[in-house]
Amino acid sequence: MTKKKIAVILAGCGVYDGAEIHESVLTMLAIQQAGAEYELFAPDIEQHHVVNHISGEEMNEKRNVLIEAARIARGNIKPLSELKVENADALMIPGGFGVAKNLCSFAVDGPDCKVNPEAELVVKSFHKAGKPIGALCISPALITKVLGAAEVTIGSDEGTAAAINKMGGTHVNTTHGEVIIDKKNKIATTPCYMLDATITQIAEGAGNIVKTVLKMI
Amino acid sequence: MTKKKIAVILAGCGVYDGAEIHESVLTMLAIQQAGAEYELFAPDIEQHHVVNHISGEEMNEKRNVLIEAARIARGNIKPLSELKVENADALMIPGGFGVAKNLCSFAVDGPDCKVNPEAELVVKSFHKAGKPIGALCISPALITKVLGAAEVTIGSDEGTAAAINKMGGTHVNTTHGEVIIDKKNKIATTPCYMLDATITQIAEGAGNIVKTVLKMI
Repeated sequence: MTKKKIAVILAGCGVYDGAEIHESVLTMLAIQQAGAEYELFAPDIEQHHVVNHISGEEMNEKRNVLIEAARIARGNIKPLSELKVENADALMIPGGFGVAKNLCSFAVDGPDCKVNPEAELVVKSFHKAGKPIGALCISPALITKVLGAAEVTIGSDEGTAAAINKMGGTHVNTTHGEVIIDKKNKIATTPCYMLDATITQIAEGAGNIVKTVLKMI
Repeated sequence: MTKKKIAVILAGCGVYDGAEIHESVLTMLAIQQAGAEYELFAPDIEQHHVVNHISGEEMNEKRNVLIEAARIARGNIKPLSELKVENADALMIPGGFGVAKNLCSFAVDGPDCKVNPEAELVVKSFHKAGKPIGALCISPALITKVLGAAEVTIGSDEGTAAAINKMGGTHVNTTHGEVIIDKKNKIATTPCYMLDATITQIAEGAGNIVKTVLKMI
């Protein structure tokens, strides 16, 4: 039997300017442990900026999202432009500020954000094909911006929830490990580090959302 | 009851020039899932070099080991100089080329490698205090170089095994998930990505070595 394949988009490498590393690794692990397989993608673009993860300050450097995401992928990653909807059964996007800085500009522009054209095309194509999409942490903001409507969760942050509602989404408050399922749009979301979480809670959230996404295939 | 605390040393962020990310994250997860807690440390030094994780080629950049390791740590990491043996019950070192490039020069100099003085002091002080040390992937080479004797595994790579024996160690071949225990020296080692492994096998290896280390406390 062919394994179900989930395409995973990484937005760099590191919570403050890229993909959140724990969410990315634990999503990959959960997919494999559930008997499916993953293929990793990232946009071949310059990062919005580079953040010193100790001080939180911007560094005077330039880095490429794909090249940095390859650190999480151990080199086994492709440009997002090569992700075609017919080559995967589902799409998943771990969180991290990179989603809101590199895949779209939500961290800077809020509900009026712009979306990276490749990310927009991929989300739209999976949605149109009726293939499920799983979004962790802040990624539901990207999904909502692209689709204009979706029932999602980013946990319980009031500002972000209000922004999601303004973009046409319907935000539902959740706590650790919970998954919100929008059956009509085949979208699953879970808060992960949008809450003050432990790595064990991230593993639980990643495991739950992967199981939910696989059931929707 | 006070939780057992394991100090974890990260050698950067990324398999080819830093700490292997999956091994680092899955060690942290395994420690917490086993009911213990971790504290993260990295040396505040310049990386040996920076590697493009897609092409494998060196990049014309400088990065700091502590600042990059902070990506895995989500900022919650201290300089290795602050790690005192009395503040932790055990020591663990995930793998990645950073161990053999930043914590010591094994990747360049083999058995004649030099060891970062802070890493050397920490390994010696935990060993002297009879506190267990867990080393994943290539890290057993560092341990062997510092202690001059230990029964360890890095999997089954003949060249690396020979180098370990030359440094005074005794190498034992292993496969996925196996842990070699040197009871006399309280050292546990497991091959992880020194073998061609899946992320599920890394989770298994990290889980097994964490349990072994906790039992030796």
